[in-house]
Amino acid sequence: MGKNLTTKILESHLASGEMIPKSEISLKIDHSLLQDATGTMAMLEFIAMGVDRVKVELAAQYIDHNLLQTDNRNADDHIFLMTAAQKFGIYLSKAGNGVSHQVHLERFGVPGKILLGADSHSPTAAGLSMIAIGAGGLDVALSMAGKPFHLPCPAVMGVKLSGTLPPWVSGKDVILEMLRRHTVKGGVGKIIEYYGPGVATLSATDRATIGNMGAELGATSSIFPSDTRTREFLISQGRGDSWIELSADPDATYDEYDEIDLSGLEPLIACPSSPDNVVPVREVAGTKVDQVLVGSSVNSSFRDLMTVCRILDGRRIASHLSFNVNPGSRQVLENVAAQGGVMMLLMAGAQIHQPGCLGCIGMGQAPGTGQVSLRTFPRNFPGRSGTKNDLVYLCSPETAAAAGIFGEITDPRKLGDLMAWPNVQNPEKYIVDDSSIIFPAVDSSKVEIITGPNIVPFPDFEALPDNLAAEIIIKLGDNISTDTIMPAGNKVLPYRSNIPAISQFVFEQIDPEFHKRAQDKGCGVIVAGDNYGQGSSREHAALAPRYLGIRVKIAKSFARIHKANLVNFGIVPLVFKNPSDYDAIQQGEILTFSNIRSLIANGEREIGVESQRGTITTILDVSEKERKELLAGGTLNYVKQAK
Amino acid sequence: MGKNLTTKILESHLASGEMIPKSEISLKIDHSLLQDATGTMAMLEFIAMGVDRVKVELAAQYIDHNLLQTDNRNADDHIFLMTAAQKFGIYLSKAGNGVSHQVHLERFGVPGKILLGADSHSPTAAGLSMIAIGAGGLDVALSMAGKPFHLPCPAVMGVKLSGTLPPWVSGKDVILEMLRRHTVKGGVGKIIEYYGPGVATLSATDRATIGNMGAELGATSSIFPSDTRTREFLISQGRGDSWIELSADPDATYDEYDEIDLSGLEPLIACPSSPDNVVPVREVAGTKVDQVLVGSSVNSSFRDLMTVCRILDGRRIASHLSFNVNPGSRQVLENVAAQGGVMMLLMAGAQIHQPGCLGCIGMGQAPGTGQVSLRTFPRNFPGRSGTKNDLVYLCSPETAAAAGIFGEITDPRKLGDLMAWPNVQNPEKYIVDDSSIIFPAVDSSKVEIITGPNIVPFPDFEALPDNLAAEIIIKLGDNISTDTIMPAGNKVLPYRSNIPAISQFVFEQIDPEFHKRAQDKGCGVIVAGDNYGQGSSREHAALAPRYLGIRVKIAKSFARIHKANLVNFGIVPLVFKNPSDYDAIQQGEILTFSNIRSLIANGEREIGVESQRGTITTILDVSEKERKELLAGGTLNYVKQAK
Repeated sequence: MGKNLTTKILESHLASGEMIPKSEISLKIDHSLLQDATGTMAMLEFIAMGVDRVKVELAAQYIDHNLLQTDNRNADDHIFLMTAAQKFGIYLSKAGNGVSHQVHLERFGVPGKILLGADSHSPTAAGLSMIAIGAGGLDVALSMAGKPFHLPCPAVMGVKLSGTLPPWVSGKDVILEMLRRHTVKGGVGKIIEYYGPGVATLSATDRATIGNMGAELGATSSIFPSDTRTREFLISQGRGDSWIELSADPDATYDEYDEIDLSGLEPLIACPSSPDNVVPVREVAGTKVDQVLVGSSVNSSFRDLMTVCRILDGRRIASHLSFNVNPGSRQVLENVAAQGGVMMLLMAGAQIHQPGCLGCIGMGQAPGTGQVSLRTFPRNFPGRSGTKNDLVYLCSPETAAAAGIFGEITDPRKLGDLMAWPNVQNPEKYIVDDSSIIFPAVDSSKVEIITGPNIVPFPDFEALPDNLAAEIIIKLGDNISTDTIMPAGNKVLPYRSNIPAISQFVFEQIDPEFHKRAQDKGCGVIVAGDNYGQGSSREHAALAPRYLGIRVKIAKSFARIHKANLVNFGIVPLVFKNPSDYDAIQQGEILTFSNIRSLIANGEREIGVESQRGTITTILDVSEKERKELLAGGTLNYVKQAK
Repeated sequence: MGKNLTTKILESHLASGEMIPKSEISLKIDHSLLQDATGTMAMLEFIAMGVDRVKVELAAQYIDHNLLQTDNRNADDHIFLMTAAQKFGIYLSKAGNGVSHQVHLERFGVPGKILLGADSHSPTAAGLSMIAIGAGGLDVALSMAGKPFHLPCPAVMGVKLSGTLPPWVSGKDVILEMLRRHTVKGGVGKIIEYYGPGVATLSATDRATIGNMGAELGATSSIFPSDTRTREFLISQGRGDSWIELSADPDATYDEYDEIDLSGLEPLIACPSSPDNVVPVREVAGTKVDQVLVGSSVNSSFRDLMTVCRILDGRRIASHLSFNVNPGSRQVLENVAAQGGVMMLLMAGAQIHQPGCLGCIGMGQAPGTGQVSLRTFPRNFPGRSGTKNDLVYLCSPETAAAAGIFGEITDPRKLGDLMAWPNVQNPEKYIVDDSSIIFPAVDSSKVEIITGPNIVPFPDFEALPDNLAAEIIIKLGDNISTDTIMPAGNKVLPYRSNIPAISQFVFEQIDPEFHKRAQDKGCGVIVAGDNYGQGSSREHAALAPRYLGIRVKIAKSFARIHKANLVNFGIVPLVFKNPSDYDAIQQGEILTFSNIRSLIANGEREIGVESQRGTITTILDVSEKERKELLAGGTLNYVKQAK
């Protein structure tokens, strides 16, 4: 029986465990990726481990999130990261050099490698046939220290692509079709592997778009074969040497199957406020648009932006509109500029911003009250834009550009009345400019790490006690994202290296008193529905509640990265054995966890919880290693004990 | 006896009074200028006046300050301003189209006109031989309603320019030399008129730089003749028809004289933290620089940015540096891009931001703790950058670019070792793109003004009572700027149309408890030294303290715009007759103002104040009209009474 590509790559990196879906495995990590929002804390954690120099093949720290700099804190973080990267042998991509995913694709990605990134959109590297997995900052810090990454062995969903995308339809529409079919939970516990004759019709950057938003399916990762299109991209980056051919065996099998005929796709759009709320663009055509944003984490490649340039060339955006372009990288902007694209955008009335995440993480670019915002971004969770009750749609660059011209949501195929389909291709040879990447110091002994006043040491957490009596501080519904738990945006992100300060913002948008109640009680529980903690990988969504005294979360189900983060910071992630018990317990109630320490230590899978209406059975579905981490009060405590 | 140009223009616009320095005159206003930080409140005030359509030749509303949009409030303000501008016949320059001063120069400025702008750097229009005066938003709103602008008749300082600037020296060095000689108080009560053979050697944009920073001298305005260089600039903008020749009579006299030999100037720099802390660049050469910012309010013209481009072309900025470019306008960016400048900046490692004020008003781009920031901006008051104890230097684009290459403060003449002096000239014919300016609606009856939740009506203020007993809430030193009184930056500026909210930030950087103490007392006094309220024109520096209960300010002297703003919002501006009385009174003391209402009504110039140590004599140096406004509790009350 032939092997699929995912299995081949995972097996070649297996450090422990067996390739049986859901059983714990650990993987050797080749590349570690950090960005500045998760990276300051991860760097503090790495420092706490006392390792002299990173032990992975390549570690890269990107400054792409905290670019607004409204006071000293962002700049203090940047210089901390720059000097720490120099010290520990990490590549540092400076502010304005671009979004981690795009820059890693351009300058560092290597087919067949495994990347662990402290950013949920790390699977963008699927475009270069890497298995890239989003994780908490602590996991990435551990990988930099040479530790393998532990996870439940994912199942592999094979998605066969056939046909060719029609004009005005692109990679974004492929992943929106996946989201339409499978929802934000459809990829949980899976790696999505694309194969079949349609793959060769997609460029590396279109594949990257599909990989990026595989995160929205909840997938562990996504992957494409490494073929001539992969080679073509690496050659265009002057890195043809990095290419190897990789594909599934002809007779490979998958745990699950799906198939998309690319020829049959039409322009799609995700309506407010979930990436899986997908309909054909034509169904919402005519909706007046106030703001358009192109770029950032996804659809910020040369092809994506130059497509928008060509569509806008010689035309004008509607006068009431704010039309904004966030290039994925300095390289993209330079190559677009070299081909005249900057002038096309400016003369059309677009605003061009520095390369970086910007509005994609609520770092500026918030729409006004009641305004409709069309974005080529990967996410439209409620409030992520920075505006309450926002109306954010997700679409392709083609659909965004059409809205720019017509001032309302418009099927981009209507552009065919005005112009020929531009059919933009990536350059055969990019202008390459690595001068905003600082290479690690060869001799790091003289590098001094500069630590500004906003960088506060990692808090001390106590070990898990024998018995817990804890109040339910909040009870939540399904699909609560990490954006809801721990908001991002310019007000909050500068505190990422300051846990006492950032914890005041937990659940701020839905329950501003949460942090006070939690801290007053001293020991608390959070109860939630399905898919709790979906979205961004941010470990602060576990770390900050832990700081506020949350010791247990009980949900119908957890998103993968968030569950791992809970264990990392010593919060016990329990799942209702009987989901109807969710209805039986209420906010404000005291739950008692008797002998929880010994139950966990003894490997018990079922944990009884005493509530007002009697005992509820919950499941603790964690590995042996994770049990030890929970007992220690978190992974960092565990690692320190083991030393 | 011949007339100087200032007198000619003022006389041709005189609505009341006589041209006797310090006596009150009023002037017919031709152009009204608003930006979005001052403009929302000014627009609310204009609406309160009940006028259907602006009554000036030209009114323009620029969106250039609040560009970060971290939540709904900025975007809500923008749509409010866009719809109100449409309604009332005002030109609207959209976000990303540029800084008001640069765009007004390019597209609207006309020699010989008088402009009133709700921004202290309005005198940039000196570059086109306009008398442009910074004022509070209420004054500008009154001008839009057709009311003349009242001010003490300024004296005229004639500055004779001779010679030619040497290579690597530019307009910025001329105004820094003025600041070195005359300090931030040297221009108070004066219009500075440049004349002589050196004038013709300066382009319109170099003149604009000098006019812009005349505000830093405390000058009412600055002016240059309208000559062939003026004509050349208007022709390059496709507006040659707007040109007229204007100059002083050959035998003109001035109230005061100075002379600068341009040939003798060298590169200058203003050290932290005042624009008049000026030394030759060579004296501070070698200081390590962490951040460079080029552009924004001043030195953001084509010549300025293209000079930086040419210096950086084919070179690299020092790797530890953050080098940022804020174009003055979309037009500047388009023309720089068309000549290859965007690529030169990008390949050198610079970050290019959207056109707008940005870091110049503390809207992002804050330096890190202890970092040295070199800026071509007009101001470096303490904390204006957004960072406490900041180290901000002000310099020319040439000096900024030199620091970019060498990573430390460097006399730009040292660049002569690497390259020929670029000697960049403005284009003979600019690419002109007015498509981000929304022209006023011809039929405004159907325009609906969109008012978001952050736009709160103007507060009601009571009339001045007969007697006041008021505590000194704070006692301050000399040269307190409006930045210190009412901080700007992204945290505060979004509240400009919400007085109850913004008043909580008064004196936040130096006395965070001020607002509580003031509100608790209900009736308060502020005591200060010389030149109180210098800097930005922001009327919120008067309006917000008034909202907190401040009824009187006593200082050794006031900055002109701030004093007018105090009257506008019903705060009595008193000056110590005997400056040594400043030392005799202390914070926390109660001062009694007996019969203050009747004293003001009776035209008394001396106002006795009872303090613990006896009676202090103060001077109320205001016009008859201003007395009536003070009695009414502010100008808006007075205008409403008069209706």
